[in-house]
Amino acid sequence: MSNTFGHLLRVTTFGESHGPAIGCVIDGCPPGIAVAPEDFRADLARRATGRSRWTSQRHEQDAVEVLSGVYEGRTTGTPLALLIRNTDQRPKDYGDIAGTFRPGHADYAYWQKYGIRDPRGGGRASARETTMRVAAAVIARKWLAEQHGIRVRGHLAQLGALVPGAFDWDAVEGNPFSWPDAGMVGEVETYVNALRKAGDSVGARVDVVAEGVPPGWGEPVYGKLDGELAAALMSINAVKGVEIGDGFAAVAQRGSEHRDEITPEGFLSNHAGGILGGISSGQAIRASIALKPASSILVPGRSVDLAGAPVEVVTKGRHDPCVGIRAVPIAEAMVALVLMDHALRHRAQCGDVGMVEPRIPPAAP
Amino acid sequence: MSNTFGHLLRVTTFGESHGPAIGCVIDGCPPGIAVAPEDFRADLARRATGRSRWTSQRHEQDAVEVLSGVYEGRTTGTPLALLIRNTDQRPKDYGDIAGTFRPGHADYAYWQKYGIRDPRGGGRASARETTMRVAAAVIARKWLAEQHGIRVRGHLAQLGALVPGAFDWDAVEGNPFSWPDAGMVGEVETYVNALRKAGDSVGARVDVVAEGVPPGWGEPVYGKLDGELAAALMSINAVKGVEIGDGFAAVAQRGSEHRDEITPEGFLSNHAGGILGGISSGQAIRASIALKPASSILVPGRSVDLAGAPVEVVTKGRHDPCVGIRAVPIAEAMVALVLMDHALRHRAQCGDVGMVEPRIPPAAP
Amino acid sequence: MSNTFGHLLRVTTFGESHGPAIGCVIDGCPPGIAVAPEDFRADLARRATGRSRWTSQRHEQDAVEVLSGVYEGRTTGTPLALLIRNTDQRPKDYGDIAGTFRPGHADYAYWQKYGIRDPRGGGRASARETTMRVAAAVIARKWLAEQHGIRVRGHLAQLGALVPGAFDWDAVEGNPFSWPDAGMVGEVETYVNALRKAGDSVGARVDVVAEGVPPGWGEPVYGKLDGELAAALMSINAVKGVEIGDGFAAVAQRGSEHRDEITPEGFLSNHAGGILGGISSGQAIRASIALKPASSILVPGRSVDLAGAPVEVVTKGRHDPCVGIRAVPIAEAMVALVLMDHALRHRAQCGDVGMVEPRIPPAAP
Amino acid sequence: MSNTFGHLLRVTTFGESHGPAIGCVIDGCPPGIAVAPEDFRADLARRATGRSRWTSQRHEQDAVEVLSGVYEGRTTGTPLALLIRNTDQRPKDYGDIAGTFRPGHADYAYWQKYGIRDPRGGGRASARETTMRVAAAVIARKWLAEQHGIRVRGHLAQLGALVPGAFDWDAVEGNPFSWPDAGMVGEVETYVNALRKAGDSVGARVDVVAEGVPPGWGEPVYGKLDGELAAALMSINAVKGVEIGDGFAAVAQRGSEHRDEITPEGFLSNHAGGILGGISSGQAIRASIALKPASSILVPGRSVDLAGAPVEVVTKGRHDPCVGIRAVPIAEAMVALVLMDHALRHRAQCGDVGMVEPRIPPAAP
Repeated sequence: MSNTFGHLLRVTTFGESHGPAIGCVIDGCPPGIAVAPEDFRADLARRATGRSRWTSQRHEQDAVEVLSGVYEGRTTGTPLALLIRNTDQRPKDYGDIAGTFRPGHADYAYWQKYGIRDPRGGGRASARETTMRVAAAVIARKWLAEQHGIRVRGHLAQLGALVPGAFDWDAVEGNPFSWPDAGMVGEVETYVNALRKAGDSVGARVDVVAEGVPPGWGEPVYGKLDGELAAALMSINAVKGVEIGDGFAAVAQRGSEHRDEITPEGFLSNHAGGILGGISSGQAIRASIALKPASSILVPGRSVDLAGAPVEVVTKGRHDPCVGIRAVPIAEAMVALVLMDHALRHRAQCGDVGMVEPRIPPAAP
Repeated sequence: MSNTFGHLLRVTTFGESHGPAIGCVIDGCPPGIAVAPEDFRADLARRATGRSRWTSQRHEQDAVEVLSGVYEGRTTGTPLALLIRNTDQRPKDYGDIAGTFRPGHADYAYWQKYGIRDPRGGGRASARETTMRVAAAVIARKWLAEQHGIRVRGHLAQLGALVPGAFDWDAVEGNPFSWPDAGMVGEVETYVNALRKAGDSVGARVDVVAEGVPPGWGEPVYGKLDGELAAALMSINAVKGVEIGDGFAAVAQRGSEHRDEITPEGFLSNHAGGILGGISSGQAIRASIALKPASSILVPGRSVDLAGAPVEVVTKGRHDPCVGIRAVPIAEAMVALVLMDHALRHRAQCGDVGMVEPRIPPAAP
Repeated sequence: MSNTFGHLLRVTTFGESHGPAIGCVIDGCPPGIAVAPEDFRADLARRATGRSRWTSQRHEQDAVEVLSGVYEGRTTGTPLALLIRNTDQRPKDYGDIAGTFRPGHADYAYWQKYGIRDPRGGGRASARETTMRVAAAVIARKWLAEQHGIRVRGHLAQLGALVPGAFDWDAVEGNPFSWPDAGMVGEVETYVNALRKAGDSVGARVDVVAEGVPPGWGEPVYGKLDGELAAALMSINAVKGVEIGDGFAAVAQRGSEHRDEITPEGFLSNHAGGILGGISSGQAIRASIALKPASSILVPGRSVDLAGAPVEVVTKGRHDPCVGIRAVPIAEAMVALVLMDHALRHRAQCGDVGMVEPRIPPAAP
Repeated sequence: MSNTFGHLLRVTTFGESHGPAIGCVIDGCPPGIAVAPEDFRADLARRATGRSRWTSQRHEQDAVEVLSGVYEGRTTGTPLALLIRNTDQRPKDYGDIAGTFRPGHADYAYWQKYGIRDPRGGGRASARETTMRVAAAVIARKWLAEQHGIRVRGHLAQLGALVPGAFDWDAVEGNPFSWPDAGMVGEVETYVNALRKAGDSVGARVDVVAEGVPPGWGEPVYGKLDGELAAALMSINAVKGVEIGDGFAAVAQRGSEHRDEITPEGFLSNHAGGILGGISSGQAIRASIALKPASSILVPGRSVDLAGAPVEVVTKGRHDPCVGIRAVPIAEAMVALVLMDHALRHRAQCGDVGMVEPRIPPAAP
């Protein structure tokens, strides 16, 4: 709990946004996985705050140092420790906020919990913490791909008022918004630019899909795969909602419409999002999250200071018009970590079970 | 994990839908809580499957036997074991399903996980398991009310196509649908009756509100209060989505609109649903869930049998036109269990922290 | 923690000595294990308090009811719940002790922890709780034997002043003291009878050996196999010491004497007790425990009552001259539970590792 | 489990003996504890391998860097990460051992578990890992002292054949062996020097005492205070036995002798070692450990290489004639960590319980 994620593949993260460093310890990792420093670069770059003018202008190298757990390029089964030094500390940017509680931030909640808080850049509540989730998930993604042929990928599915009009995985890779409709990218740019000029922000919806997950993963009834995905995704900064499969759309559906019928050739639909009774069905796992609009904006807001007196808050410094843009690799990371944890848990309990027949193919697209 | 819920207040449930009994063990319970058998009756009656003609026609007495952990009417700090005998076992109702995989059910997923399944009434995947969640939460609700003045209550917020046109907590108590709009109850009845005649089902949305939660509960970053509420609520049978506060509506909001401004007199809104940075803010905690339509319907559906051959499935026997109707006390139960667990966790770590100022009142309604 | 034992094979016990029932929930159990009610009888009989005149004269049938988790004679992967009704409740025997703190018992400690205690027969602190450990371990022993050919067995190695002069596993089975020296059984009887007449008790030493454990089980550094065996064995009532291999005898040994040398034909000795660096070496695992003499004796002792006033305590009712006699199956049970838990944990993390060479045979006896 | 210790105060350690660094993450720490870098120096110096010619000649500065969790000199409630760079890496010393399995070491067990091992200085199995236990316990010792007035200290109680003839805590501090008999220190020096010349080693016994622990800490039945102390102490490198109170001496005691009688003025003895039924009694907690003689010695020993062929092993490089000498602060550290974890667990569950009467004073010495 608290700063550790997972049951058998356990990731413990540490570090404040503007402290000396952030890092993580990955425990329970199977031995023999090939790991090289460059494995971390691509995913961390996707998440990096300074990757484009569409996200906040912080420039971190985010160079990962592997402190332990790897020998001659392979994991040994002992804990991996990853470390990233914070090279771009600018505490003066945040000097003002030490004395106030920013509306929509964790400032007041931390203050009430601990009676003390580290105000430098949001401290532990900053999205900088998610860097280590992405770094840790590099291991999980490699293992899932190598051992099970699983691919986990995501895309933006809504950005404020904008909804994609078309869907293409190739388009997702081709623009800085992970937007699946190539023809709308210009419109998205204009929209985000207008937000930036207005000093305001919007929310976003992100979809993640995991293909290749075999049936049988997940632990009923309190370790259900969807339950743990929900916890993992809701733990990402700014997330306010989680859906599996059709999610809230299922409220208005009929049972005769929602249930995914089965034929020997495969499932005929995937309303369930690949999970039934908390256990993977062999279909693609589909999860969606809602991210709230960032609260660090230039529009003034009312709040109180440490003495309880009213103040007006304007958050200067770096901002994201939409934090959802860089949430895509983070959401993918959390899904990958949950899946690998469950893969290990499944073989722990059910390693005695041989091949189970009949095996139903996933739905045709 | 698996069949245990919670970290410090730990509830372990057991039992199959049509086995000899269901039960739970509640560990970590503070000593000195007054507990009497009648404490369980009201909440279990609200959840009971046979409570009205609007839910499936199973008649269980659901008489809870307290096997341990209570001495002279008070909890002793040792584990409480609760037991309910299954008196209304009707395995013949389900004889057909042993040989097939019902679409939309956990049958196939269990089969692939374990290579064996208990087909009597859905076995462990049945919603009967949730009886023990409600029973265990009776303790949590009492403790939360007595120690902190917290009240947890919920209501139906959508039923298929129907959305309440008005809201009144008093109305919720006054009808078998936990429907908050007294003027619509006749319409809801007609709607559900039509579904029953059609042998079909619909989904539902349930809202839960916890009032009186003090600021400071929740453990960043992987034990966030919203993250654990998400896991708890997603673990309820048929749930496909979870929202905290505005949830998915936040996607289209502006930051200047969503962030809850603060004045010395209180918060000016509660878009966050009472949780910031994973920690309670002192405002009412608001969570919503989406329940899918039940898959046990009279409308025939395609599936395969244990040999993989195509079959047509019609689920005879008891059905719920909408499982959301009896999900309200279950959702309340999970929220109460999460809150009490976090209350204990908070005082474990932060019991050294005294009164923290300033304390901001929750928003006016 | 608290009333749950194990990480992947998790046993949660409940019930007070003279409450309505005791029981346990076994979670994480692999599916497909054949389980019949009679499987529990033999082991429970070995532990039973009324088995002979050498142990306390309580007559429980100890009939185990399996409430869940088994379908058509095989485990399903869902939690097994086991229940034993307390048919021989004699609270009047213990009426006196409700008002005093018996020296050497948990009375005062429970009182200080919880501010309340169940004084009926020691409540939760009674050795009756260990019945469920033995019952749960029946599953573990079956699985370890079937999947890995492992045998776990134990014997008394000292009883007060008496030390066996010879060792033979066949002798252990042939007498009610699990004494390995057949020629001394008469002497042991005389010794225990004298104790009973004196109304006093003595301590005991129990040795447990697990043969057939493959190398590689155990999780460094805080989940070491020996560390978890130590916790498991120390958690048995009255245990005050735990040794692995040579234990305290290693204090006076030389490194050149203690380290177990290796040849291609096998280890040349087993001072380590089959565990190196917290991981099994493939040799027999040897553990020993020290049990203190029972404090429930007829010899009067000084104590205080609930008001803090001095009293003289004489514990009437049933007594064990030596609780170590029936501790043998309990110690075996805890070793079996730890081993199975570690077997599951090992294959979770290291299931990708194939056959590892070279494999060194265990030592010749 | 594995590399994390504790339930609420959770310490996760990482790092290999001759990798880039070792470190730990301390999660669950109460906020507001004053922490300065110099707090770590004294305890780490006591454990340091290069502290005297009596222990192995490795010279590490062991300078602890605090990477997170502290703001303006106080803990914030977020995880503390501590880092020590390995400045004295000498992998060439250990080049020989990469190809063989040293008898008495974890080499073979790691190889069988993971199919790979980091042979540099013993990798993760090295006692260097214990540095972080001592560092983490600095926090625990400060908190226990400040909040509860608890003092945890230890001493050598046997070294091979040598047993102290007198006992004085002041003597313990005054010599490099933590030897409690000032008059014997010369004899101990001579004994250890002779061992070093012989290239051999001996075992040791270490006693730890915790004074000031209030009654009521510990969680029956599987989270007993003695059970968790046993696990914590057995997890220290080279430990083969653990005793609480009289330990194995209780085997030969009578019940009338062992049970600690109670008077209003206090307990009359402390055979129990301050723990009854797994819960602290308010008396001093006494634990002892047996450490085996180090296996890294100059005396040649038989073993096999990676191909399974017989080899003769001589461990050159740095050695400890007795690893027990520097085990004293490590054992103290583990006791302190267990106590603080239980203090937090106790107030989580029993924070509702007020002052409990009667309170019995600990025994006069």
